[in-house]
Amino acid sequence: MIQKKEIKYLASLKQKKFRLINQEIVIEGSKLILDAIKYKQNIKKIIYCLKDESFSEIRDWAKKNNTKLELCIPKDAERISDTKNSQKIFALLAFNPPKKITLNKSMMTNNIIVLDGVSDPGNMGTILRTCSWFGYYNIILSNDCVEFYNPKTIRSGMGSHFHMNTIYKDKIENIIEFLSKNNYEIIAANLNGEKLNGYKTKNKKWALVLGNESKGLSDKTLKCANTILTINGCKTMESLNVAEAASIIMHYLYEE
Amino acid sequence: MIQKKEIKYLASLKQKKFRLINQEIVIEGSKLILDAIKYKQNIKKIIYCLKDESFSEIRDWAKKNNTKLELCIPKDAERISDTKNSQKIFALLAFNPPKKITLNKSMMTNNIIVLDGVSDPGNMGTILRTCSWFGYYNIILSNDCVEFYNPKTIRSGMGSHFHMNTIYKDKIENIIEFLSKNNYEIIAANLNGEKLNGYKTKNKKWALVLGNESKGLSDKTLKCANTILTINGCKTMESLNVAEAASIIMHYLYEE
Repeated sequence: MIQKKEIKYLASLKQKKFRLINQEIVIEGSKLILDAIKYKQNIKKIIYCLKDESFSEIRDWAKKNNTKLELCIPKDAERISDTKNSQKIFALLAFNPPKKITLNKSMMTNNIIVLDGVSDPGNMGTILRTCSWFGYYNIILSNDCVEFYNPKTIRSGMGSHFHMNTIYKDKIENIIEFLSKNNYEIIAANLNGEKLNGYKTKNKKWALVLGNESKGLSDKTLKCANTILTINGCKTMESLNVAEAASIIMHYLYEE
Repeated sequence: MIQKKEIKYLASLKQKKFRLINQEIVIEGSKLILDAIKYKQNIKKIIYCLKDESFSEIRDWAKKNNTKLELCIPKDAERISDTKNSQKIFALLAFNPPKKITLNKSMMTNNIIVLDGVSDPGNMGTILRTCSWFGYYNIILSNDCVEFYNPKTIRSGMGSHFHMNTIYKDKIENIIEFLSKNNYEIIAANLNGEKLNGYKTKNKKWALVLGNESKGLSDKTLKCANTILTINGCKTMESLNVAEAASIIMHYLYEE
């Protein structure tokens, strides 16, 4: 049976400061944990509270891989859980924080998705999920984005966090400089720009930049983008959600 | 100053049962209230807690239109609010619940968006916002959808609720029957279907049906749809979020 101080530690990871200090997070639910296993994430421990058959696959994996397996009572599960209805199985994951950009080194990939101040965790997770759907596995976040490993981001990301090849995080100025120096076509989404439909990328190497929910793109991006794209609509609504704009443009740029 | 029992009533509307009994909801924040005014919603009362200049437009409107205007203290605003950080201005809105379908009467519109069991309020709101962006103002909900006037749906809808022409709600069987009888091309989104890219609608009158987040489309829709469309991806991710699939298909079908 799990110790009290261990429960306390796991519950503390609901707070950003403890996640950042310890570079560990708790993920919840069989589906997400099985995805973390499949994508070889650094799982430190499995905590579960029901001897439910549905957990057997995860428990078997833990035994085979010498990963610590601990039983807890429902009350503890509630303390660990970040949601109203705990899924009663958790994994403690060690993560590598997003790296800073090395300006002179190419990421060796043709397509990059850049989040320029995306602040809502649900939006970030949804965008990552769509990135994974279309196979865009290289992500750069500006420093003012919401935390990549925020529990809500992970929840709405539905496992896409584990599919990514590279995750960088830096000042938007450095990101744009990196993209320019490495000859990426910088495509940004905004309310006033060139019509998306009919648009053709000029360069095989491109980066799509998506802005903040209320402020839009940063000045640096607006100034340096090669192309600013707009999704035409009926003008009743002031704006599209950034995750929706991301989905529409990613689908448009995707080559089957 | 607002009365205690009034605060209690407004706070009770956070619960679905009281919203349904009273057919009233509370909306929060200047932006949403100004949109409700613009789209002539049935505003019964304005409640605000700061004599902030930013509220002057709403207060002036209320005075001019003989709408009751009440001041409350910050503690009351917290009780009324559905969010952690109250926006300190609220409107009490009377709504007409979604109507049942009249089988033999056409809705007199070419495009309809049908939600077949969409259960997440954030997803429903996001889909409505995208509908409004592309000018699809006619919505039909199956009975097992989340409540149209759920506070989270309204929040993520960002005012799109007020832009809609018609909102129907009925059994999915009746919805599909209505669409068939009125010669709508029934287009549904699913993981296994015809490729979206290259698809052309066969009929100027179409209805796009979007399914539940985990179960997908209902059997009735799967059986009766004229076309089942799939958004091709890389297969790393099990599925796209329903709101993302909705955005991509709505954008694809939209004629500028």
